[in-house]
Amino acid sequence: MSRQDPPNPPAVLTIAGSDSSGGAGIQADLKTFSALQCYGTSVITALTAQNTTGVQGVHPSPPEFVRQQMHSVLSDIDIQAMKTGMLFDAENTRAVVAALKEHYAARPMPPLICDPVCVSTSGHTLLQPDAVEVMISELFPMAALITPNKSEAELVLAHRQLSSKIDNLEDMLRAAKDMLSLGPKAVLLKGGHITSTLEDIERVSSVHPQVKVIKDGLLSENMEILLKNSGQTASDVMVVDVLQEQDNTTLFVRPRIDSTSTHGTGCTLSAALVCELGHGNSLADATRAASRYTHIAIQTASPIGSGNGPLNHLHPIVPRIVPIPTPTDPHPLIRTLISRTQDMWKAYVEHDFVRQLASGTLARESFLHFIKQDYLYLKYYARAYGLLAAKSSTFSSIDAATKTIINIVTEVSMHKAYCAQWGITEDELRATPESPATTAYGAYLLDVGLQGDSARLIMALAACLLGYGEVGLWLMKEAAKPNSWVKLDGNPYLKWIQDYSGKDYQAAVTIGIQTLEALAVADPPSELRFQEWLGVWQECTRLEKGFWDMALGLL
Amino acid sequence: MSRQDPPNPPAVLTIAGSDSSGGAGIQADLKTFSALQCYGTSVITALTAQNTTGVQGVHPSPPEFVRQQMHSVLSDIDIQAMKTGMLFDAENTRAVVAALKEHYAARPMPPLICDPVCVSTSGHTLLQPDAVEVMISELFPMAALITPNKSEAELVLAHRQLSSKIDNLEDMLRAAKDMLSLGPKAVLLKGGHITSTLEDIERVSSVHPQVKVIKDGLLSENMEILLKNSGQTASDVMVVDVLQEQDNTTLFVRPRIDSTSTHGTGCTLSAALVCELGHGNSLADATRAASRYTHIAIQTASPIGSGNGPLNHLHPIVPRIVPIPTPTDPHPLIRTLISRTQDMWKAYVEHDFVRQLASGTLARESFLHFIKQDYLYLKYYARAYGLLAAKSSTFSSIDAATKTIINIVTEVSMHKAYCAQWGITEDELRATPESPATTAYGAYLLDVGLQGDSARLIMALAACLLGYGEVGLWLMKEAAKPNSWVKLDGNPYLKWIQDYSGKDYQAAVTIGIQTLEALAVADPPSELRFQEWLGVWQECTRLEKGFWDMALGLL
Repeated sequence: MSRQDPPNPPAVLTIAGSDSSGGAGIQADLKTFSALQCYGTSVITALTAQNTTGVQGVHPSPPEFVRQQMHSVLSDIDIQAMKTGMLFDAENTRAVVAALKEHYAARPMPPLICDPVCVSTSGHTLLQPDAVEVMISELFPMAALITPNKSEAELVLAHRQLSSKIDNLEDMLRAAKDMLSLGPKAVLLKGGHITSTLEDIERVSSVHPQVKVIKDGLLSENMEILLKNSGQTASDVMVVDVLQEQDNTTLFVRPRIDSTSTHGTGCTLSAALVCELGHGNSLADATRAASRYTHIAIQTASPIGSGNGPLNHLHPIVPRIVPIPTPTDPHPLIRTLISRTQDMWKAYVEHDFVRQLASGTLARESFLHFIKQDYLYLKYYARAYGLLAAKSSTFSSIDAATKTIINIVTEVSMHKAYCAQWGITEDELRATPESPATTAYGAYLLDVGLQGDSARLIMALAACLLGYGEVGLWLMKEAAKPNSWVKLDGNPYLKWIQDYSGKDYQAAVTIGIQTLEALAVADPPSELRFQEWLGVWQECTRLEKGFWDMALGLL
Repeated sequence: MSRQDPPNPPAVLTIAGSDSSGGAGIQADLKTFSALQCYGTSVITALTAQNTTGVQGVHPSPPEFVRQQMHSVLSDIDIQAMKTGMLFDAENTRAVVAALKEHYAARPMPPLICDPVCVSTSGHTLLQPDAVEVMISELFPMAALITPNKSEAELVLAHRQLSSKIDNLEDMLRAAKDMLSLGPKAVLLKGGHITSTLEDIERVSSVHPQVKVIKDGLLSENMEILLKNSGQTASDVMVVDVLQEQDNTTLFVRPRIDSTSTHGTGCTLSAALVCELGHGNSLADATRAASRYTHIAIQTASPIGSGNGPLNHLHPIVPRIVPIPTPTDPHPLIRTLISRTQDMWKAYVEHDFVRQLASGTLARESFLHFIKQDYLYLKYYARAYGLLAAKSSTFSSIDAATKTIINIVTEVSMHKAYCAQWGITEDELRATPESPATTAYGAYLLDVGLQGDSARLIMALAACLLGYGEVGLWLMKEAAKPNSWVKLDGNPYLKWIQDYSGKDYQAAVTIGIQTLEALAVADPPSELRFQEWLGVWQECTRLEKGFWDMALGLL
């Protein structure tokens, strides 16, 4: 549960058959690799024409072409973990073994998981009888792990004249040890077709006290409230996988599930194991995680096809709502916020108040009304940053919010000097009654700060900071055009334009932009949360426009 | 930006070659399908041994086996959109056409995108010369869209003795119309290899006023603050894709990017188009989204291999941190919170105070100290729910929080009655000084409520609600064992045990559990946000334990 986007996903390899219906084979593997943040490569040993009802045909790859695919991948890409699935025949199995030996003659081989696929669920032969011996004698000894199910283990053990009946947990423990003696570093014997209860498991583990039992996804002690609300009982049917390492035996216990969405379960599990090993996890941790992944994938599958449907490989991912910043789109969050509120944003930035101010035609009383109300608004704005400081969890964010307050207070003292120039005394400023538009906007900021977290408050504060910066740049751009409607020379409001287009204010805008974008990268919002951000941005844009309506209308 | 997990991802199909290195072909398609929440199926027309440096070998599938794969997929799975990529030769192209005609003889065919792959970037022939005519005359007329790049369009147009030079935007407009005359419903002519500037585009669109121009990911008006911070200018080199539909021509404009991570760009774009059509979007919307997806995938790619590396197909997804609830794990959030704080949670639930209380050996003064402090704590707890009401955004959540306050107030009046039984008057209760453990816990709840959003406050309030429920059930479970250490008969604290294990309290616990789980499903937390939740849960568990330490130690 703690994996984050790695900067470089590990490259992994599957050597297996292709399943046209996408539920098993390299298709299941590639989907699993994607869901578990690995870069997937594949060597196809055989094509199958297959769907959820069964295997309709097999077209094996020529052994030479298997070798060639192996070479293309291994000579170019640094593989961190790999698996074999369906190998089909002895020649292709040998081609895989030979290519691995060739490429890893002089360097350590990454962990190889061998899923000894022999027969499809629907009964189709996926490994020719003469290939079984090659797999056992040549491939098993190279494997970090083999992952047989009951029937595959029985087939392999019978092939070697070992005791092959696997009907219960005791049989599984014995079979797993016998399989280990065939050469792999570890064996994961899957118990999907063997019935066990928690009582069976307790009995077996009392007979074999050295066996470790991991009940993952099962409720453990001090979870009575969940037990009561879920209905698990000790006599529920369990599935036990046995992980046999050189010196350790571990049982992985999960509730058995009844589902028809099981097409490709074995492929999916071994592919997930590859990912976990590729991410550098231990075999036991990998087994636990891969088995959990597969278990959820079965339970959350949607019905596809008319037979045994595929798993839901994509359950551990959710859509990223705000795109990753890129060189050509370094500010995707703000670009999206502005795009999604385009009309209102334009009505705010290019407001008649701004146009009249920039052309020098704005009525003096409108401007005075505006700066008096702006003075009152800035008190709310400073307090909102005070609330942001209170909502911070690091000294650096407390510091940033506090410095903004100091900047606002400085701005206010300039404001007072400015007002004095226009003949407004400080007493008059203080005595000015608040316009509803001022109260609405100011109180809304504080309400957002009360209601949400610091991210939401930062969104609310941004519309003012960024909007005034936008107005400043827009006016200077317009002013630069030939015969511009913007009059800078002799404009009584020149200082206002200069302030918001000037270096100091624009530097604050840049920091604001960076803060917002960094926030969306560090804490990618869900769709719901993004909609909240957008709603706040939209409302603040509307309130900004309302503020200028108020100034023009002397409301 | 508004796509959410669909309950049933649309099934889509790629009919193309396999790329062992995973960057192009069906591998790129399947990765794209996964990233864009589609269920992928695939028909393999040819295997390639390929990596980032080039194509080392091609092994075509037998035409009969192409047909068989087509049949397996189309007879079983309800495909919503599909594409063709590398078809390799005339026979395989005909096999695809025949299978499509057979399967869609009596029902409407889902949209087919034909990516006319002819030559690899490295110069390898991926479509035999004699197959070009089959593709044009038989496949194009079935296609909802064909997606040639410059060289593919030139090859096709030359093949039909049409004017084939495509060197600028005007050429592209003409070529797209000529390609449309070959039968497909629409043409997306990709301009990745043709240089344009915004000025070129303005010039062309003034000559052809009916042509629509979509500048996606580019900064538009009222984005001066972003422009200033990104350095885009009108003379930047742009890439223009031309979408030619029957009655509409649309230019899709994006900044050109220099990158060596371009292996499989064409496959990726057409696969993304398939997904967008599969999700039911219009051709223009699909083009915009697919082109954006591909553009970001190029820019965010990690280096893989020694040649032209693959794209980052997985950029639009992030890991799901809290697993989806399943029948066998219906409460993954709370299970995880408890598992991750297991020792502290156990120390809280199975605290000596609880043990002594349940065995009837708890000192009277400890219990009295506890209920007095609990009375004081409940005032904070009720106020925290008041804060939760204030932080709510729907009447139903305001209602839920308020009803909880009423329940707490009722509990308090029982508390007073209870205290009276033990000889504590209401005045004495009120005059009791708060223990530091009480203040710490109570004030922490209100601080969480001040600092975070309602979700974080709900996490903080849950540890108390769920923990007392857990204690109640644990004690009743222990009491039910033979010769239990729990004494119910004659236990002076029996009512306390009965209250917390009783139906009313447990019903509140169930609602609490459901609320928390629903929260994580509706608003999947990022890793950062989940860590905040876990931190709050952990701290509350610690404070709960501290509360009982206080009661036992009379602190």
